[in-house]
Amino acid sequence: MGTKGEMTRQKIIDDATGIFQRKGFGTTSVNDLLSISGVTKGSLYFHFPGKEALGIAVLKKEAETFMMFLDDVLIGETPAACLDNFFNAALRKHQGTGFVGGCLFGNTALEASDSSPVYARVVAEVFNEWTEKLRKIIAQAQALELMRQDMPAEQLAQTVIATIEGAIMQSRLHKSAEPMTRALKTLRIFLELKIDRSDNP
Amino acid sequence: MGTKGEMTRQKIIDDATGIFQRKGFGTTSVNDLLSISGVTKGSLYFHFPGKEALGIAVLKKEAETFMMFLDDVLIGETPAACLDNFFNAALRKHQGTGFVGGCLFGNTALEASDSSPVYARVVAEVFNEWTEKLRKIIAQAQALELMRQDMPAEQLAQTVIATIEGAIMQSRLHKSAEPMTRALKTLRIFLELKIDRSDNP
Repeated sequence: MGTKGEMTRQKIIDDATGIFQRKGFGTTSVNDLLSISGVTKGSLYFHFPGKEALGIAVLKKEAETFMMFLDDVLIGETPAACLDNFFNAALRKHQGTGFVGGCLFGNTALEASDSSPVYARVVAEVFNEWTEKLRKIIAQAQALELMRQDMPAEQLAQTVIATIEGAIMQSRLHKSAEPMTRALKTLRIFLELKIDRSDNP
Repeated sequence: MGTKGEMTRQKIIDDATGIFQRKGFGTTSVNDLLSISGVTKGSLYFHFPGKEALGIAVLKKEAETFMMFLDDVLIGETPAACLDNFFNAALRKHQGTGFVGGCLFGNTALEASDSSPVYARVVAEVFNEWTEKLRKIIAQAQALELMRQDMPAEQLAQTVIATIEGAIMQSRLHKSAEPMTRALKTLRIFLELKIDRSDNP
């Protein structure tokens, strides 16, 4: 595919991202996609066999962006500081949108789990990768005794992600930072995360 | 309204519940509702001014059922046992559906938070009532030293609900009891819940 074709394809994906995020994959129609991107039906179907293929392309692009976000924010002097930075960044990310939109992967999980196995598979893969990234950092923090060690790192990683997804839901519902702030504060205590030097002799 | 009218109204609500749960409030059309309930458009609009009014009636009925469920399962010899029973019952409830459908209130929170303030208000009220029921039991368990006391009961109740909602999302996505089972097991440890007599001298 030539450069112009690739640019059109990217533009369709970019334009579709916002409307899929706002309306969900099920409710967004092909006509919505045509009117937002301004391309012809012929051009849309030239680049994507159908709405689902475009939806998957959007999800995969957003997944890449999210994995880069995780790598960018899981940084710090210690593994415990990495986790703490990630918590702060997750809050800032959603605060930055005024708690509108939420987590595309969480939204799609609830929308697609029962009805769209193709979407569900991509979203499950995103959650698996996210879990693995947290699991590694948690295992490192445990090895350095910078957090509790009485549960496997994978179990803790999965529970952290569940809590964050539920807290995003509550912050979106109330359009308030409080549910996320409170859940993250509680998680830090639950995990016995040693971040300050004073905690970390 | 006479008995027959009331029965028709209830039947419309009951028939609408399943399709709203499966398809969401946004995607379900008036035609879907007519074909599933078998009533005429005139009858539907006689009982409900529109789809949203029917949706709210369904949400309120489901909220009543959920509050009765909570009262039924938040029982036990001690407040800690009440919480443990609730955790077990929540898992059984979703296991019973094969992790299809999930939590109507969580689904509606994600669907309606940004777009349908009327739905969002009803769902926020459900979460507030749920939080209050857990807060009371947690405060009692804390007073009896049957769980950790270093955080306010309300903060713990909100975090428990966030974790459960996120875990339901993951169990639905993977069609597996494992995410819920694991999150609830982790919560019991995080909360330092003393359930067994051996823990509770």
